[in-house]
Amino acid sequence: MDGFPFAAAIRVRFADTDAQGIAHHSNYLVWFEAARVEFLEHFAGGYQRLRDEGIESLVLEAQLRFRAPARFDDRLLVNARCIAIRGARFRFEYAVERDGLLLADGWTDHGTVNATTLRACRTPEWLRAALTESATAE
Amino acid sequence: MDGFPFAAAIRVRFADTDAQGIAHHSNYLVWFEAARVEFLEHFAGGYQRLRDEGIESLVLEAQLRFRAPARFDDRLLVNARCIAIRGARFRFEYAVERDGLLLADGWTDHGTVNATTLRACRTPEWLRAALTESATAE
Amino acid sequence: MDGFPFAAAIRVRFADTDAQGIAHHSNYLVWFEAARVEFLEHFAGGYQRLRDEGIESLVLEAQLRFRAPARFDDRLLVNARCIAIRGARFRFEYAVERDGLLLADGWTDHGTVNATTLRACRTPEWLRAALTESATAE
Amino acid sequence: MDGFPFAAAIRVRFADTDAQGIAHHSNYLVWFEAARVEFLEHFAGGYQRLRDEGIESLVLEAQLRFRAPARFDDRLLVNARCIAIRGARFRFEYAVERDGLLLADGWTDHGTVNATTLRACRTPEWLRAALTESATAE
Repeated sequence: MDGFPFAAAIRVRFADTDAQGIAHHSNYLVWFEAARVEFLEHFAGGYQRLRDEGIESLVLEAQLRFRAPARFDDRLLVNARCIAIRGARFRFEYAVERDGLLLADGWTDHGTVNATTLRACRTPEWLRAALTESATAE
Repeated sequence: MDGFPFAAAIRVRFADTDAQGIAHHSNYLVWFEAARVEFLEHFAGGYQRLRDEGIESLVLEAQLRFRAPARFDDRLLVNARCIAIRGARFRFEYAVERDGLLLADGWTDHGTVNATTLRACRTPEWLRAALTESATAE
Repeated sequence: MDGFPFAAAIRVRFADTDAQGIAHHSNYLVWFEAARVEFLEHFAGGYQRLRDEGIESLVLEAQLRFRAPARFDDRLLVNARCIAIRGARFRFEYAVERDGLLLADGWTDHGTVNATTLRACRTPEWLRAALTESATAE
Repeated sequence: MDGFPFAAAIRVRFADTDAQGIAHHSNYLVWFEAARVEFLEHFAGGYQRLRDEGIESLVLEAQLRFRAPARFDDRLLVNARCIAIRGARFRFEYAVERDGLLLADGWTDHGTVNATTLRACRTPEWLRAALTESATAE
């Protein structure tokens, strides 16, 4: 999708559906996360590298807009990009599409924290550099 | 909590936790929904009444702010209130607390749809009346 | 239920349902766990006491039989009992009922492990005593 | 894996982990299902074909053995095979491996039911034929 340097492929599982016959809305946060993990692997050596340094990334805020439902066995693309990095905080944006149709979009804000204390700590330089660079990728 | 006419009790399950040792952020949408279902039971005869009329409520938009993590076996209160009803759309606000400490807040926007076609339909009058009345409850 | 010293109350959430209109079968393992946690709180000072000693309990094996579906908003009782303790291993049995109708039953086998290494360690004496005693409770 | 005609690739998501730092055991039922859906797509035209005929497959029974934990971001293979078909019932077996190491195995029993009434109905001939044939595939 234009403006997104990365997309993760997601297939809607039967367990993701609910009694409305569509994917339950809480799954989108899980899919955003799955896309973020693949994004970080692609651009920044993986989320595990953060964890190996004793750092975790906490979700601080999230917004989601649901435009059209996803259904069982749908093949989705979860487009992702990092759009801002400031201090210990960064933001990802997402657009979920099926065959070019936008189903949902949203963003998540993250803060890096010490894995033991869960207190805020500065985002490591290598991650800042990688996220900044991802913004200019095609 | 002041300003909220209703609260649902939630206990954090072990399955809700993640490898950061805290409740995974996607659970808050599930807890918001559980509170909403209890809210509708308390004020409006239950969500099943909607379904019995061939109507579903779809989540159209959601926002969440995470202020402090919840942990395994925490007893939470998910305060809920309906703050706006317009046409086929209404908004719920939530505040999740543990022992008086605010852990997270957020809102969800909903639209009523025909259960078969998932197309927007006017919110039934009895639900509008009940939601409006809930706003003045203590 | 006869033969079970304990039951946990579970309410089926909308997020628990799937596109078949029933509770997804994977939820029963989550409900078994929720019942087990409440059971341990009731009889043995809580699962957290184990964790405080640097011990975790791993699920080693599980069996489930589904006899009748649970649906959205159903109020269930998850009856639980500990039926065997040997060395580092113990077994829980469950029966899930709605209004006296048996919906599902099953069991889970558990082993106590060191929380850091995840290697098997002997079940603490206080837990063995508590589990043994629970078997004679009514 | 020897003896299995099919394997589905699963990547452990962060949301799948729990506070023990491993994948929560309930996920294996979800992964079994994901493998089954891919299996049916590969050998039998897909689960949706069943649903299009007004038939659902219910899980009747399940057994799981956990031998070694899976962790965040692990790449797993969920091997699957259909080992028995009798009347309205069939059984799948699974073996979950990571880099050749067996992490878990189990089986699930299924019955075909009318999607509206959820009453047992004979497994369609095309599905019986496809499942039987899969057993001889390499």
